[in-house]
Amino acid sequence: MVSASGHEAVRQCDALTGQLYSDHADYLFRPYLGSAHLRAIERVSEWMSDAGMTTRVDAAGNLVGRYGEGAKALIVGSHIDSVRDAGNYDGPLGVMLGIQLCAALNATGRKLPFAIEVYAFGDEEGSRFPAPMLCSRAVAGTLNVAAFDVVDAQGMTLADALTTAGLDVGHFLDAKRDPAGILGYLEAHIEQGPVLEAEDLPLGIVTAIAAQIRYQARVTGVAGHAGTNAMSLRKDALTGAAEMMLAIERIAGAGPSDLVGTVGRLSAAPGAPNVVPGEVVFTIDLRAGTLETLQPAEAAVVSELHAIAARRGLTLQLDCTHQLPPSPCAPAFRAMLSRAVESLGLKARDIVSGAGHDAMIFSPIVPSAMLFIRCKDGISHNPLESVDPDDADLALKAMLAFIDHLEAAYA
Amino acid sequence: MVSASGHEAVRQCDALTGQLYSDHADYLFRPYLGSAHLRAIERVSEWMSDAGMTTRVDAAGNLVGRYGEGAKALIVGSHIDSVRDAGNYDGPLGVMLGIQLCAALNATGRKLPFAIEVYAFGDEEGSRFPAPMLCSRAVAGTLNVAAFDVVDAQGMTLADALTTAGLDVGHFLDAKRDPAGILGYLEAHIEQGPVLEAEDLPLGIVTAIAAQIRYQARVTGVAGHAGTNAMSLRKDALTGAAEMMLAIERIAGAGPSDLVGTVGRLSAAPGAPNVVPGEVVFTIDLRAGTLETLQPAEAAVVSELHAIAARRGLTLQLDCTHQLPPSPCAPAFRAMLSRAVESLGLKARDIVSGAGHDAMIFSPIVPSAMLFIRCKDGISHNPLESVDPDDADLALKAMLAFIDHLEAAYA
Repeated sequence: MVSASGHEAVRQCDALTGQLYSDHADYLFRPYLGSAHLRAIERVSEWMSDAGMTTRVDAAGNLVGRYGEGAKALIVGSHIDSVRDAGNYDGPLGVMLGIQLCAALNATGRKLPFAIEVYAFGDEEGSRFPAPMLCSRAVAGTLNVAAFDVVDAQGMTLADALTTAGLDVGHFLDAKRDPAGILGYLEAHIEQGPVLEAEDLPLGIVTAIAAQIRYQARVTGVAGHAGTNAMSLRKDALTGAAEMMLAIERIAGAGPSDLVGTVGRLSAAPGAPNVVPGEVVFTIDLRAGTLETLQPAEAAVVSELHAIAARRGLTLQLDCTHQLPPSPCAPAFRAMLSRAVESLGLKARDIVSGAGHDAMIFSPIVPSAMLFIRCKDGISHNPLESVDPDDADLALKAMLAFIDHLEAAYA
Repeated sequence: MVSASGHEAVRQCDALTGQLYSDHADYLFRPYLGSAHLRAIERVSEWMSDAGMTTRVDAAGNLVGRYGEGAKALIVGSHIDSVRDAGNYDGPLGVMLGIQLCAALNATGRKLPFAIEVYAFGDEEGSRFPAPMLCSRAVAGTLNVAAFDVVDAQGMTLADALTTAGLDVGHFLDAKRDPAGILGYLEAHIEQGPVLEAEDLPLGIVTAIAAQIRYQARVTGVAGHAGTNAMSLRKDALTGAAEMMLAIERIAGAGPSDLVGTVGRLSAAPGAPNVVPGEVVFTIDLRAGTLETLQPAEAAVVSELHAIAARRGLTLQLDCTHQLPPSPCAPAFRAMLSRAVESLGLKARDIVSGAGHDAMIFSPIVPSAMLFIRCKDGISHNPLESVDPDDADLALKAMLAFIDHLEAAYA
């Protein structure tokens, strides 16, 4: 049996790739309830069993491994779905470190006054259905049934996708856990940014997860023949969208460094080389560490986009699809995690997370903490994602020290 | 007997629709050699006979009606095939106006020193076989036998399609006409654009069919997490492409009105709302009446796009996918058509055809002219295609006046 380590967690992440664990032949893409996801559940479940855990798949398609006994459980979570053309570590590393944490406890037969439940969430990225964190929201009990009314790019409903995985949308909300039974939530995750690397630090303590707002923009002009429509008479939805994208880039770039704005998905119809596009749909993602920064930027984007549409004779429809307040981590949990990192002789670097994480779903419900792990060049959502296995070892040691503090506090 | 008129030409176009004349139950679709096309040949042939013409179907499946006698013939042509979900007038209106022209001459027993041959071409749109203008190219004698090596969406070869229509691919090229026997080529066609309507003019004189060049652009940046990548450090392929699209729009808009530039198709990868796009592929379509206009615009686009890529740290690959020289109309024919339009008290508005037409096949071979007719909202390739019958009357009168000028010049 392999002994528990961060190196092993990284190896497990690397093993969860290739044809078996991706729904695309050329790159890693593991959307929620795809066949790659279902195979990943089987594999990770074996690793959980090896670590001395009992396993189950809950009503939302989350794989849950439980270690130990107790009236309450510490949830150690992250996700095993991925974006398209993903790296190996965003999500899986937190799950594998949770398993290694239990494996380390199990190796010495350590008994705790609480259970540890490692959650491998099925959907965090929202890369299949236009609704991220469906699975952690189900567990936290903050999901609205309206969230079920989504279809994927192939037109399959969430209900049908659940059926193909042997699940029933009618029971989806049964994944909810009673907060009274949850001691707290801990998540380890790669930083997905360049700060820790720039400061030569392997680990960071997340103070809060940034506020975030997403829109879907629908720009409607008039489709027409690319040869016969004079430039001055066009109502080109795509050049209108182009001007809007540059406005978003300019507004976000003019703010503080934690303010970011992104158009990540865009489709133009009818989509023929010789036809002026009549309709463009694109997403807008805006984030900042505080609402004081985010809200004025959002107002500027909305106003600027409407002005561009009006000037070009286009119709603009903006629908807010997603909105998250900033999620501060629990001071007591942050303090225990900081002491744990310092006990390794490392600086406990406080850091704001620009990315959303499952932790933000739990932080309003139960005490939550997040540990960031340095990643190479700040790259993520990209096959170039890279983590030093020695950093993962330090993360595992910090998590074990955190458990010690939690146990002491629990008594 | 109905007297010759543009109103009657429009009625004939409208009569050439419905179940009998479409191969699709829900909309107008009349592909080359389909049963709707063969029935249309029968019906149009009757109208030709009524107009005092002799008729035949040539070796390429073109219906040819001949009026009068002479060593030479003026070809008045357009097409009776259609795109899928077509309007009634793109093609048929030029054929029916040719028939009404002969009907008008026939009504007064007018004798000309040349014949008029109305060609109802079988294929212009290329909506059945992936090779447009097969039929006019056969008549002009510029078709290569390699063009026969095509199959339709059902896998039927051109040879088999010809056989079902009682034709023989081995004789296809016999449709060729000796240019020595052709006095010239005249085509009336809806504008398929908004220019005439915007200027409140019923008719336009085509100066040339535009030169055209198409590129595929591939912009490569670095994909990254939308929350954690500071704006200043991004290499966003989509905002880069947005700046490029606006440059294309600006360059085309700054040129003469016949210069148009279009990005009609665009895809951004990986295409998730929370990922900065790493790669964008888009098409560029540039057209202008002359190479003197097109080439500097093309050079400006290429240079500007490379400059944008360089400034943003992006990689740009530009591949030329399609290139057509301009097809200028014959100055003498244009002048006669202009005088004809002016004789109706109308402004002879010169206009470049941004779309391709059968006329472009004849203009390198024989003197050619094209008359554009205003259409509602510039709409074509769409059931909403609409022509004012009064405009068709004016077109018919202009064509009759053109014949007068041609007769005078012939003497």
